Amino acid sequence: MSILIKGVRLNGETTDIFIEGNRITEIGDRLGVEAEEVISGDGMAAIPSFVNGHTHAAMTLLRGYADDMPLKEWLETKIWVIEAHMTEEDVYWGAKLACLEMIKTGTTFFNDMYWHWQGTARAVQEMGIRGAISAVFIDLFNAQKAGEQIALNEELYAAREAFGPRVIFTLGPHAIYTVSEEALQWCAAFARAKGLLIHFHLAESEEETNRCLADHGTRPVRYLEQIGFLGPHLIACHCVWLNDEDMDILKAHEVRVVHNPTSNMKLAVGGVFPYPQLRKRGLITALGTDGCASNNNLDMLESAKIASLLQKFHTGDPVVMPAPEALEMITTQGARAFGLESGLIEKGRWGDIALVDLNHPQLTPHFHLASDLIYAANGSCIDTLICDGRILMRGGRVEGEEEIMAKARERAFDLVKRAAG
Amino acid sequence: MSILIKGVRLNGETTDIFIEGNRITEIGDRLGVEAEEVISGDGMAAIPSFVNGHTHAAMTLLRGYADDMPLKEWLETKIWVIEAHMTEEDVYWGAKLACLEMIKTGTTFFNDMYWHWQGTARAVQEMGIRGAISAVFIDLFNAQKAGEQIALNEELYAAREAFGPRVIFTLGPHAIYTVSEEALQWCAAFARAKGLLIHFHLAESEEETNRCLADHGTRPVRYLEQIGFLGPHLIACHCVWLNDEDMDILKAHEVRVVHNPTSNMKLAVGGVFPYPQLRKRGLITALGTDGCASNNNLDMLESAKIASLLQKFHTGDPVVMPAPEALEMITTQGARAFGLESGLIEKGRWGDIALVDLNHPQLTPHFHLASDLIYAANGSCIDTLICDGRILMRGGRVEGEEEIMAKARERAFDLVKRAAG
Repeated sequence: MSILIKGVRLNGETTDIFIEGNRITEIGDRLGVEAEEVISGDGMAAIPSFVNGHTHAAMTLLRGYADDMPLKEWLETKIWVIEAHMTEEDVYWGAKLACLEMIKTGTTFFNDMYWHWQGTARAVQEMGIRGAISAVFIDLFNAQKAGEQIALNEELYAAREAFGPRVIFTLGPHAIYTVSEEALQWCAAFARAKGLLIHFHLAESEEETNRCLADHGTRPVRYLEQIGFLGPHLIACHCVWLNDEDMDILKAHEVRVVHNPTSNMKLAVGGVFPYPQLRKRGLITALGTDGCASNNNLDMLESAKIASLLQKFHTGDPVVMPAPEALEMITTQGARAFGLESGLIEKGRWGDIALVDLNHPQLTPHFHLASDLIYAANGSCIDTLICDGRILMRGGRVEGEEEIMAKARERAFDLVKRAAG
Repeated sequence: MSILIKGVRLNGETTDIFIEGNRITEIGDRLGVEAEEVISGDGMAAIPSFVNGHTHAAMTLLRGYADDMPLKEWLETKIWVIEAHMTEEDVYWGAKLACLEMIKTGTTFFNDMYWHWQGTARAVQEMGIRGAISAVFIDLFNAQKAGEQIALNEELYAAREAFGPRVIFTLGPHAIYTVSEEALQWCAAFARAKGLLIHFHLAESEEETNRCLADHGTRPVRYLEQIGFLGPHLIACHCVWLNDEDMDILKAHEVRVVHNPTSNMKLAVGGVFPYPQLRKRGLITALGTDGCASNNNLDMLESAKIASLLQKFHTGDPVVMPAPEALEMITTQGARAFGLESGLIEKGRWGDIALVDLNHPQLTPHFHLASDLIYAANGSCIDTLICDGRILMRGGRVEGEEEIMAKARERAFDLVKRAAG
């Protein structure tokens, strides 16, 4: 398979981009090569497609089901009740809907943690994007449960290749307040032995810190260091309750951190991702949407705008997290966090590219691409999406989108009915 | 002109909506009436079109021109320099682009303050939406300038009817730090005599409060009360530095307040709109985008989401400003603030209606319309827009949109060139 994008705006110039197999093999003016697929880039800008650093894809099924509730009541009376009734088939359709929404809004990679791993893996395999997928690992400090979770993860790891190279198996220990020390240590050892990433919720609430102080006599980050959990394999999501020492420790271990501003604000978790301090220390900082029950969408451009606004508001400095940095968080920084060969459009990288329709009021007059994308546009400005050298969307249309929405709708309403009784 | 919307979702039921002239004359199942235009509402929900409570429409021309700068430097070296070179023709095309963007995102009314009043008025008249338009009134405490501004406003007032009934003339004294006491009093008297609204920036920054304390020995709201400026004619925008006494005074005079969360966060003005306290007092609270140099778009659904997130974050309470209230702010509350006969879809109201395309991933599965609109969707979910009984958009397309974008782009780049000398 080969794709030629003709006459597209790239870094302020008009050029051609040639993709062979799943990689960009040439970039230049009027390449004059033959390609199986030719895309006119007229009126469009090529950008690296986006990286969603933290989500629970199948929670699209719960979008708008229960909003504006106190956190504990929301989890206990709504989310957990529904999740207890979810089947792999539900997760499959929820994840398909999530992939569809991500494709429509320019995202080709997401980092996921959810139940029924295979449901999400099948959806990713079929939809053509990339997913780092972890099963939720919760043992509630029970050794038997821990053993079951370990067995499940070993089994999923062994079977992972059946879903092809775009599905990346990762470990998903949920958080320090739901996973035992022994299980966290097993995860770290398994990740190191097999070269896997660990997807983890860290420092999301003040309660988490207080409980850790009470239980372990130290704050979460230092506790995790003490048990040997930290390392560049760790994708630490949220990180809104960190102090200077925590950040120094995270940097010393080259942990990758993922900010989820919309979810943090919507759930009112209180803390704020200390972006200027993390950036000053040189940590890799990516951005995520979190699941659709707490966002309620998967639009990375919207999340990047909200991230930048929140930093400016919180620091009182309108210069913090300027548009180009916010755009980097969802492209190059995201790719670095997950070791992806995307995030930049250059020869040798993966053909993971989004084409932005510049004939859009929110991109007019168009002085600066990064400013327009982050502050003015949203995911609806994406016209064409290519992942792994395959065209997943053209003219804003994705093959089979009506069926995916219809089936996901049907599963969601059926699920709620099943959960009710 | 008559329009029949057939089989559309309205408040959870499927119904027909009949519009004759510029008003809704019937709502009911299978009305069986003849209409000049028939719209299928299949897969769509009808909602009142949105009210943008505060903007500077023609600033679309400066979208993305200068972001991420300290406020003073931004104003003095960028915005004011460009504005000094703007002509009425620039403002006309900038406002046309703004109207186009508003139509595309479901807004049929905006409250504007800008230079070259006629440019914006012409754009509104042609584009088919409604605008409450004020000329920026700044005298910098200079009696001669005040006289000129008064003469200009009397002239604009006298000529206002030339632009038709959708153009509403209002007065636009800028703020207490740019307009003299005498001029503010003239505005209040003229507004009362002629039944006009006053569009005003109030309590936007801490500096404004400190300066007022130094100059007048009291805070801005009480100062304005003392000089007789307050009343239900006043649309007070921003209001992020208010104390309890200020809010009591605003309520006593039935001032209408407009929150601009995105602009406030992006410019890092520090204060937060005290929504729960204003709501408890029963003030009419609307929502605005502010101009495109400080937002950078005119998408009311995005602004409503950011408003709700900011309130939840700031108060630490995930229940504050739930989705239905946020939706009210941009529909019913907005309509009440400006005395519009829209904001609800019911018999006798204006035919100002947006149709939402429910076949959209972000509106799937669709448990609650308000939740989906506010938290998941953005303006791109609007398929059809009707204002004053005329169809302004169908299938997401607006007549002449390419030309408007091309001309606005041309004017913007030419303006920047002229300003550079």
